[in-house]
Formats: sequence, C-alpha cells, structure tokens
Amino acid sequence: MSQIGVIMGSDSDYGVMGEALEVLRQFEVSFEVIISSPQRTLKRTVDWVKSFEAQGGNLIIAAAGLAAHLPGVVAGATILPVIGVPLSSGALEGIDALYSIVQMPPGIPVGTVGIGAARNAALLAVQILASQDKALCIKVKDYRTQMLKDIEAKDEALQKRLS
Amino acid sequence: MSQIGVIMGSDSDYGVMGEALEVLRQFEVSFEVIISSPQRTLKRTVDWVKSFEAQGGNLIIAAAGLAAHLPGVVAGATILPVIGVPLSSGALEGIDALYSIVQMPPGIPVGTVGIGAARNAALLAVQILASQDKALCIKVKDYRTQMLKDIEAKDEALQKRLS
Amino acid sequence: MSQIGVIMGSDSDYGVMGEALEVLRQFEVSFEVIISSPQRTLKRTVDWVKSFEAQGGNLIIAAAGLAAHLPGVVAGATILPVIGVPLSSGALEGIDALYSIVQMPPGIPVGTVGIGAARNAALLAVQILASQDKALCIKVKDYRTQMLKDIEAKDEALQKRLS
Amino acid sequence: MSQIGVIMGSDSDYGVMGEALEVLRQFEVSFEVIISSPQRTLKRTVDWVKSFEAQGGNLIIAAAGLAAHLPGVVAGATILPVIGVPLSSGALEGIDALYSIVQMPPGIPVGTVGIGAARNAALLAVQILASQDKALCIKVKDYRTQMLKDIEAKDEALQKRLS
Amino acid sequence: MSQIGVIMGSDSDYGVMGEALEVLRQFEVSFEVIISSPQRTLKRTVDWVKSFEAQGGNLIIAAAGLAAHLPGVVAGATILPVIGVPLSSGALEGIDALYSIVQMPPGIPVGTVGIGAARNAALLAVQILASQDKALCIKVKDYRTQMLKDIEAKDEALQKRLS
Amino acid sequence: MSQIGVIMGSDSDYGVMGEALEVLRQFEVSFEVIISSPQRTLKRTVDWVKSFEAQGGNLIIAAAGLAAHLPGVVAGATILPVIGVPLSSGALEGIDALYSIVQMPPGIPVGTVGIGAARNAALLAVQILASQDKALCIKVKDYRTQMLKDIEAKDEALQKRLS
Amino acid sequence: MSQIGVIMGSDSDYGVMGEALEVLRQFEVSFEVIISSPQRTLKRTVDWVKSFEAQGGNLIIAAAGLAAHLPGVVAGATILPVIGVPLSSGALEGIDALYSIVQMPPGIPVGTVGIGAARNAALLAVQILASQDKALCIKVKDYRTQMLKDIEAKDEALQKRLS
Amino acid sequence: MSQIGVIMGSDSDYGVMGEALEVLRQFEVSFEVIISSPQRTLKRTVDWVKSFEAQGGNLIIAAAGLAAHLPGVVAGATILPVIGVPLSSGALEGIDALYSIVQMPPGIPVGTVGIGAARNAALLAVQILASQDKALCIKVKDYRTQMLKDIEAKDEALQKRLS
Repeated sequence: MSQIGVIMGSDSDYGVMGEALEVLRQFEVSFEVIISSPQRTLKRTVDWVKSFEAQGGNLIIAAAGLAAHLPGVVAGATILPVIGVPLSSGALEGIDALYSIVQMPPGIPVGTVGIGAARNAALLAVQILASQDKALCIKVKDYRTQMLKDIEAKDEALQKRLS
Repeated sequence: MSQIGVIMGSDSDYGVMGEALEVLRQFEVSFEVIISSPQRTLKRTVDWVKSFEAQGGNLIIAAAGLAAHLPGVVAGATILPVIGVPLSSGALEGIDALYSIVQMPPGIPVGTVGIGAARNAALLAVQILASQDKALCIKVKDYRTQMLKDIEAKDEALQKRLS
Repeated sequence: MSQIGVIMGSDSDYGVMGEALEVLRQFEVSFEVIISSPQRTLKRTVDWVKSFEAQGGNLIIAAAGLAAHLPGVVAGATILPVIGVPLSSGALEGIDALYSIVQMPPGIPVGTVGIGAARNAALLAVQILASQDKALCIKVKDYRTQMLKDIEAKDEALQKRLS
Repeated sequence: MSQIGVIMGSDSDYGVMGEALEVLRQFEVSFEVIISSPQRTLKRTVDWVKSFEAQGGNLIIAAAGLAAHLPGVVAGATILPVIGVPLSSGALEGIDALYSIVQMPPGIPVGTVGIGAARNAALLAVQILASQDKALCIKVKDYRTQMLKDIEAKDEALQKRLS
Repeated sequence: MSQIGVIMGSDSDYGVMGEALEVLRQFEVSFEVIISSPQRTLKRTVDWVKSFEAQGGNLIIAAAGLAAHLPGVVAGATILPVIGVPLSSGALEGIDALYSIVQMPPGIPVGTVGIGAARNAALLAVQILASQDKALCIKVKDYRTQMLKDIEAKDEALQKRLS
Repeated sequence: MSQIGVIMGSDSDYGVMGEALEVLRQFEVSFEVIISSPQRTLKRTVDWVKSFEAQGGNLIIAAAGLAAHLPGVVAGATILPVIGVPLSSGALEGIDALYSIVQMPPGIPVGTVGIGAARNAALLAVQILASQDKALCIKVKDYRTQMLKDIEAKDEALQKRLS
Repeated sequence: MSQIGVIMGSDSDYGVMGEALEVLRQFEVSFEVIISSPQRTLKRTVDWVKSFEAQGGNLIIAAAGLAAHLPGVVAGATILPVIGVPLSSGALEGIDALYSIVQMPPGIPVGTVGIGAARNAALLAVQILASQDKALCIKVKDYRTQMLKDIEAKDEALQKRLS
Repeated sequence: MSQIGVIMGSDSDYGVMGEALEVLRQFEVSFEVIISSPQRTLKRTVDWVKSFEAQGGNLIIAAAGLAAHLPGVVAGATILPVIGVPLSSGALEGIDALYSIVQMPPGIPVGTVGIGAARNAALLAVQILASQDKALCIKVKDYRTQMLKDIEAKDEALQKRLS
C-alpha cells in the first residue's frame, strides 16, 4: 500500500514529475504512479483513484498541462486531499494549466503549487504526512536545516568571489 | 429524442445559457437541458452524456465557469461534437474558463465560443444540424438576412439622427 | 466534391495545418485546401467559401495567426459550420489569434480549438461528419480505443522503468 | 463628398464613437458615418469602402469590439489609410479588440489608437489631413494651445485649493 | 488547542475569510484566527506560527491580497502544511495575489486555492484532517452526498421550469 | 527635405526598423533616420522633431521597446501624424511597449501598428502620403496586386505539393 | 524651498494623489504640486523639473495613468530620484500605466510603487529623506509602531467578535 | 560600513545582479552583498537587514524571482528605503515577480524597477545617495552626459551606414 498516488495525464509529463518522485524517495515515503487522462481514459482514471483511496492511500498528486482537468476530476472522485501541478506546455506556457487547476468551483478543492513545481508538490505531500508522523517530521526539519546550510554555503562562496 | 443536449455545471449558469435555449426554440430544434458537474456529480454527468448519445442525440453544448472542466469531460465521454461555452465568474472574469475549455489536449476537441456567448453556441449547433437539413438551412439563411436588415435599419436610424 | 474545406491565411501556416490534413486522410474524409487572406485577397476568399458551400461541402476549417480575421470572415460568408484554429506567431504567441477568433460578435459563431491545435480541429470536423455517418462513427470509436491503448502502453512502460 | 468615413460594427458603438464625430465637427472636417459589419454584412461593408474611396474620401476610421475584424477588413478593401478604434465590450474589456486590430499581418496596416479612444482617432485623422491643409494646421495648433491653457488653468485651480 | 490556524493580513480580509470559518464550524473542526502581517508585524506573525505549531496545531490557512507574502512567509516559519488563499483587492483583482502565493520558490510549498476561494481552503483543510480521522471522513462523504443532492434538486427545479 | 522621419530609441532597434526603410526605398519615398531617446536625450529628440516639421516633413515613424515613451513624446512635440512601432525587448516581449504606445491620453494620438511591425508602419506612412499623391497611389495598388499574386502563387505551389 | 515635488498628468489624478499629500503633511515634509503633461505641455514639465532640482528639491513623485510617460520623462530631465505612481484609468485598469512606468530602459530608473499606491509613494519618499534626517527617522519608526498597534487592535476586535 | 546593501534570494540571481554591483563600483559607492531567503532563512534575512540598518547603511536593493517576497519582507524589517528588482524565472518570465514586488500593501513601500533591471536599481540607489552628496551628483551628471554622447555616436554610425 502506497501513501502517495501520483497521476499524470501523459508520459511526456514524466520529465518534470520525476522530480517529485525523487523527493518522495528521499523522504522514504511510499508512492505509486499512473499515467491516465480525465478525457481519454476517464473510467480508468476514476477506477484508479477510488481503488487508491480504498486501499488506504493518503494523498494524490495530479499533474497536467494545457486545459488541465486531471487534478479537478481526481478531486471530484475522492475525498483524499489532492495537490495539483500545472505543467508548462504549448503557447500559453502553463498559465492555461494554472487557471484550469487553481480556479476550482466551490466544494471540490485542489491545493495548487507553482507551474512546473513538481518538487514543491512532493514536499507539500510530505509535510501533510509529517503532521501525523513524528519521524517524518524530523526529516522535514532536517531538510529545512539543510536548505539553510546550502544558502549559507552559497553566500560564503559569493563572499569569497567578491572579496 | 432531442437533437441538442445542453449541460451546465450550476443552475446559476442558466441566466446566460437561457439565451441558447431561446435560439434553439426559435429554430425549432429539439433540446434537453441538464445541470450536472464534472467533479461533484461525475457519474451522473457521464451517464447522461452516454445516454444522450445512445438515444441518437446529435450534439452537446456544455457551459461552465472558473476552472471549467465540464465541456472537456463531456467531450471525453462521447464522440458527439461538443461546443464549449466559457462563462464569466469570479475574479478572472471568464479568462480561466476560456483557457480551461479551449486548450484541450490532443485527441479530444471542444469547439469553443466566446466568453458568455451562449447565443453563438446555439447558432453553431443549429448550423451543424443545418448542414444535413435543408429546411433548417433555409431558416439559417433567413436569420442571416434578418441580421442584415437589422443592421440596415439601425444604420438608417443613425443617418436620420445625424442629419 | 470535398467534405471539408481547409483555408489558411499564409503558406507558413502549412507547417502546423499539415497535421490536420494528416488526420483527415487517416479518417478517409475528403478535403480541399486553399491559401487565401481575408484582407489581402478578400474576394478570392469569399468566392472560394461560397463555391465550396454551393458544391455541397460540409464544414470549413480556417486557420490564422496574429489578428486572425480569416475564420470570422469565412463564417460570415457561409452558413456552413466553421472551426477556427488560432496559430502562434510573433510576440504574442497566439493569444492575439485566440482572442481574434473566439470572441466573435453575436450572430456569426466560430467553433475555436486551442492555439496550434490543428489535429483537434480535424478531429472535431470528423466528429461532426460522424454524427451523420455510421462508418465514420466506428472509425472515431476505434481512434478513441487506440488512444486508450496508447495511454495504457505508456503507463506500462513507465511502471517497468520505475520498478 | 466627405473627407473622413467613420464605420462601426454596431449601433451600440455609437455611444463611444459619437465623441469622434464631435471632434471632426469641431475641426470642420466633413465626414460620413455607416454601421456595417465585416461578418454579417460583408458585401455592404466592402461596397461602402470602395465607393468612399472612389468618391475621393481621404481616410477611414473603423471601430469595433470583441474579435474586432472591421478595421482590418476595411483596410484590405482600400488603399486609404485606416485608423482602428478597439472598443471595450464583454468580459475581456477591449483587450480582445485591441489585439484583433493592432496585430495586423504584414501588408495591410491599421493605425490603432487606445481602447475606446474615439477622440484620439478623430484627432489623428485631422492631423493627417492637416499635413496637407494649412488652415487645418492652424486649427490643430490652436487646439494644442488650448490644451496647454486648460492644463495651466487646472493647475492654477489646484494651487488655489492647496494654498 | 486548535487543529486549524487561520491567519489573514488585514481585518478587511475577514469578509471573505468568514466563509472558511463557517465551513470549519460546520465540520466541527477547532480553529483559531489571527490578523497579522508579514511586513508590518513580522515578528508577531512568526511567533504565532511557531507557537501554533508547538501547541500541536495541524495546518494553517493563510489569506492575503495584493503582493500576498503572508502564506509564503508563514510556510517558511513552520513545517505544518500551509494553504494559501489569494484575495481580490485593487486594480489587479487578485491576479497579483495568486501569482504571489502559488509561484513559491523550491523548498517551501504553499497549496493554493482559487482567488477568494475561502470555502475551498477550509474544505481542503478538512479533507487533510479527515485522511487521519474516520469520523471526519464520514462527514466529508456526507457533504459530498449533499452536494450531489443539491445539484439534483436544482436540476429538477430547472426541468419543472422548462416543461 | 525628407517626407518621412524615422526615429528610434536605440541602435539595437535598427535590426527591426531596417525593414521599414526597405519599404520606404521600394516606394521611392524620401526619409531620414535618427537615433534619439525621450529620456536620455530629450532636447535632441524634440529639436529634431521640430526641425523635421519646420522643414516640411510629412509624417514621423517612432519605434521603441520596453516602457516605450518615444512615440508619445514625439507626438506631443509636433502636429505631424505619428506612427508608433512597439518593439519586443526583455521579459514582457513587447506587451509593455504596445501598452506604452497605444494607450495615449486624450489629445495626443499615436497610430500604433503591431509589435515589431516595422514593415506595416512604413506601408501606413506610404498610404497616408498616397492619399495626396496619384503616382504613389498607383504604386500602392501595384503592391497590393503583387500581394494577391504572391498568395495565388503560394497556393498553386501548395496544390501541386498536395496532389 | 520644498523637499518633495509631486507632479501629475491631469487634475483627475488628484483624487488618488491627494492621499500622498496627506502623508507628506503628516510627516511635516514640505512639498509642492504641479499638474503638467509630458506630451501636452512638455516644455512646462521639463522647466518645472529643472527648476525644482535647481532650487534644491530632493525627490519627485510623478503619477500618471494610461500610457504613463510622465515619470519616465521627468526622470530623464533630472538626476533627482523619481518615484512613479501608476494610476488605474480606462479599460486596462492600470496595467498599461504600470508597464509604462516600471519597464524603463537602461540608464534612467524610476522607482515604481503599486497601481494607485499614492500613500506608499509618499512613504517611500519620506523614508528616503529619513535616511539623512534623524528626526524624520523617529517619525517613521513611530508610524511603524502605530501600524503594529492598529493590527493588534483590529485583531483584538476580531477575537471579541469571534468569542 | 557600506552605503548600499544588496540582498538576493538565490545565488542563481547573481548572473543578473552582478550588473548592479558593476554600476555601484563604477560610482565608487560602497556596498555589501548577501544571499538570503525570506522563507528558507527568514531569521538570517531579518538579522542582516537590522544589522545593516544599525551600522548606518543607507539603502537596500533586494532581488528575487517567482513569488518574490524578499523585497517586501526586507522593507518590513527596516525603515531604510528598499529598491526591488523582479527577476525573470520559470514559466511566467518575471510577471509573477513584478506583481509580487510592486503591489505592496499600504504602509510598507518598495520602489520597484523593471524585470531584470539590476543596472537601473543600482542607478536609482546612486541617485538617492547623490541627492545628499555633491561629488556623487557630478558623477551622475557625467554618466548622463556620457549616455548622450553614446547615443550621438551610435546615431552618427547609423548615418554613415545609411549614406
């Protein structure tokens, strides 16, 4: 049984969404991934969502580009929290996907992250799990500490370069 | 059996979509209307679409605001042509709905009309039917002639006003 | 006599619109193509539209970039249904063409597809014809089944890659 | 014979375009006005344009809202200079009209003024005529002087109010 | 000890954010509310966030308009999940707030809901809690069932009106 | 004495504006060019404009990118008609320049062409001159005829390619 | 001799800019105000700017709507720091003014505040003066403390209302 | 003790912000640089800001991309004037950063320059210092003179090329 389900509308989305999986692995959070479309394979999408919820999954990350209906349709098919990732694709470079995901009608929310922000989607998922999981909590705090150290290190490098 | 199915996501959409029904009545094209949501009542939506197609319906007009997933989800559930009407609602005033409807991924098209253009959606539906229906064809031509006369009348009124 | 007329404003549009022709060929739908402009060669444009309608054509696909007037002018010259394809060109990358096509004034509708979505324009045309043509209907259903299989195959490939 | 032709797509445009006529009257420049549409009454539009050019007209001001094709179609039908006025109408509040007018394809230019800027369209027309008309030239200079005086008067009023 | 913390940048945000509190009350989820600014009262903001986390709070909803820094600053000060609500305010009508909240840099995610979507923010919070709380789970399912019934009732009312 | 003055804010604009000069040469319209800025070299800009007008110049084409003040400042310094060319430059890709040029305040109009549309600016200038110059008139008509022939030739080439 | 010069393009801008004057009065910073336009009264504008600088003024606040050239032209005419205030006016509601002010070409900067943010422009001016004026420094700190108290008071009022 | 503090959210911002440092060096204005984030390292950011103010620094330049909170958070932590530089990064190419910086709420102003306009940020800082520093004043005037000469030289080169 996986904690996080990751669904994307097309295998071309994997280039960006692979970063989310990397983060989940880093935090040792179990996940499963599926490619499915809310228009081309609606039944398959809904079946997977319902089965993921039934098996005790905790949260779904859904990514799509263009008129990105996947996160919203997934959110309508489950009461698990859904994180939406708008992907940049085509002439509108992700604005279309952002509006299609974030502007959900009342009653069915999607928690949306930035355009192409697969990494942040995974971190938000991890933080949601961590609020019920002390061990994971510590890992998130360590991750934050590491970010602080990285910035300090980069700053130090810059100071050297400038002096 | 109706020729045109009109589906909208919320009864608040009826204020605008009533204009489409008026046009359909004017052309004596049979239609049925349903309120259903692609997120809140997905199964109901898909069931209606499939049943409308099975009963020999010709075309579906789907209207929605915000992150407007309805037309795309309908289009994925049928091979009937789908006309999408983006509705203005909330802070983005219909740009969100326009992008959510028109930017469909490859494989599942939606023919989109302007923001709030319920009347044009109905006219497009009538023109599609008319391409296989001589009598309807004549009515469309009469409608066009009437538009021409209306413009001429308005122009005449303006000329009088200016002279 | 062709079923579908495809008109584009410039031969540089052929790079994208070639994809529409490919789809039409795949569904064995007859078509004819013309390059003509609503500003530079208005009479030629209107003459072709009227002659295409007179010869029993069913539907016109019109593609243009920038201040894309072609679909709207075509729609005004015929009562055949018109599908508009906004093309990305210049600094505004197709937003100009999208607004110029989709925001038609009341009375003369254009069914608009996504920016650069030539393939979807052709599919919508095929679906419109299919609603009166059982054989074509089956082909569209096969096409949909194939899309489903493609997604399943891509998903399978991803699962292998991840395991 | 009029010097300036003013064409608008709908009589609802007169509310704004009346300001242009007022300016033309103020400069004693002769004009004629017509309501005609590039989609609904294309032939009528083109006939008027060609006849206006044939009768020795100097310049055309064309105003439209939404997917504003009128200025571009007029520009394609004449070699007279065309000034386009995008009008605010509907959800996109004139951005659609602006893009539809200003982003003309190479070869057929339209000189575009601001959204709803009927007054500026008329002034630009007057300045174009004035470059060949000494008397009109003086009127334009007087108009500019008057604007300067108006600003000085308003500034004076403000200074009084503040002191 | 409250489960949900609701923070807003100004008391003028309460008009919209009151809807979130209503939802939380309806689901009997405990919450506390604070008005604090990430610029004007940064220390106060961070102190509250840290104390809310320390006391065992589960999740924070942060709402702001204009250059909406509050959700991001809150997210940086805690590892609790943060839901951001962009509010419409001033000339940009919430687009500024949406971009300021959703486009967070890598490492510090904010789950963003639609512009003014206070109700959805609360529902997302409830769903996140529900994934660890069977009783709440049932309430969410009941809420969804109620939404379905509401749509059916509205549809029924429309059918009566149309027949 | 030149008929057309062409002013640009930076020598980097010459890459695009060279196309305007080419058109002017093709129509044998005399012109002069100057690089000057409305901020960095305001006096120089105004002096040139006033001297160009005094020497009997007919029209000014002004091109600029970013916050493009040049056309408006030029328009304020002369009663000659001014054609503005917004240039694409930096992150906003010309939208900034378009708005900065086309949205002139009442009283001082600028006739704006599309983003980067140097060629159309020159053609509009030529058409304005042609309305007082029979010989130039014939050249413009020939140019239009040539455009028509070009489209027909391109269409013919496409028909061959497709058959 | 005034410390701050406030220039606006039209007396209609006074409705918003009056708020800036209020702030300046509150901080007892001397100022003078002028209405002048960079297009309609360019010489007057530049003369005032140069004279304000010559008399020892410290900083200029310039406000304008539409294609807002005033701040940039002022900035080109002085080496005093210039703060630009984009004003909402017409269909684009201040986006045009924002882009016209903030996207200045290299070499002539304008420090831009939010759309309609007259109050913030004045505060920024005060802070710039305060960095050289201990007494003013204390007033700014008091102002900040007052803002903190205001937020605390509003929060207290809300807590009472909610309990 | 440095006069100008330059803070950026990430070392990847140095590519653009290096241009600001170059300008500061050219004017012999002392500066210090720090990499720090308003979310990832908030305390570090605020500590540096407070210490920079305490040590007598005059002004802070803050640069960030995406949901750019850095300038606003810095502005809230100091009464020194803050200049914000929105950086282009990701799908929205700097519009997100621009809105996140310029649309500050009332009370805490940020003087914003154009997207990526590091050079202008530094020049604005120099001009602010120069208003209290005669020697620096002369350097700014020399810089302006040099810009004028550069334009004249470029114009001369163009005239040669054209003749």
